[in-house]
Amino acid sequence: MLGKTYDSQVCSIARSLEVIGERWSLLIVRDALFAGSTRYGDFQRSLGIATNILQARLDGFVQAGIMRRNRYSERPELYEYLLTDKGRALAPALVALTEWGDQWATDGPPPILYTHAVCGAGVAQQTICAQCGRVDDPAEIQATSGYHR
Amino acid sequence: MLGKTYDSQVCSIARSLEVIGERWSLLIVRDALFAGSTRYGDFQRSLGIATNILQARLDGFVQAGIMRRNRYSERPELYEYLLTDKGRALAPALVALTEWGDQWATDGPPPILYTHAVCGAGVAQQTICAQCGRVDDPAEIQATSGYHR
Repeated sequence: MLGKTYDSQVCSIARSLEVIGERWSLLIVRDALFAGSTRYGDFQRSLGIATNILQARLDGFVQAGIMRRNRYSERPELYEYLLTDKGRALAPALVALTEWGDQWATDGPPPILYTHAVCGAGVAQQTICAQCGRVDDPAEIQATSGYHR
Repeated sequence: MLGKTYDSQVCSIARSLEVIGERWSLLIVRDALFAGSTRYGDFQRSLGIATNILQARLDGFVQAGIMRRNRYSERPELYEYLLTDKGRALAPALVALTEWGDQWATDGPPPILYTHAVCGAGVAQQTICAQCGRVDDPAEIQATSGYHR
């Protein structure tokens, strides 16, 4: 568990990780985003995750506004979990993590390919400088405090 | 802790999270990438993290090839932790997570701004389609298995 000191991390990475910083969380969002999973059983089958953990994560996502709970059956009373705009907006971070994993943490060809639904061509994450265009060397990215400008 | 079922997740997101899927891990990499932290004390001061957790994470990064341990003093024997290319390659994923946090998980202006060291202009992550250019709607990204082409 994270101690109180974690609260002092004002950076938005830290804020993001408060919401989706646990491994299963990102895999659940991945399934919702890219495999069309919406129901408890979809996630359970795909991830083989303990049921109490899965339910806690889904409830947490609803509370954090990443998903909303939608009743799709009256009798029996059944619910599905649908990504909100806030949840869908995690796609670039997941694609970037996938690309890192493809290059550095997986042997062989990429297990998952991302394509553009509109035209079928491949999609990739790029770091773009407003002035220079593509930035391919991570060493050229610098961070400065946004508060002291 | 993650059970064995986690091993069945072939997706590169899952592989990535095996290496850097714990909250503190990404914050340590963030400090190394963007704050120039290299020494145990740098990370400790910045994060206020329990010393045993910090040491375990740094050792884990060395084992995973994300950092290398470099002796910078003979007497006393002192070490620093330097990012490898594999570690630096996490920059796009961290920038993407920051952008999500800026937009969806932080009130007020972005706490951290990313700029291009070469020219000083702002940098951002973009999802790019090889054919259409920018993809701004995450719903247009689809995932397909890379094994069955």
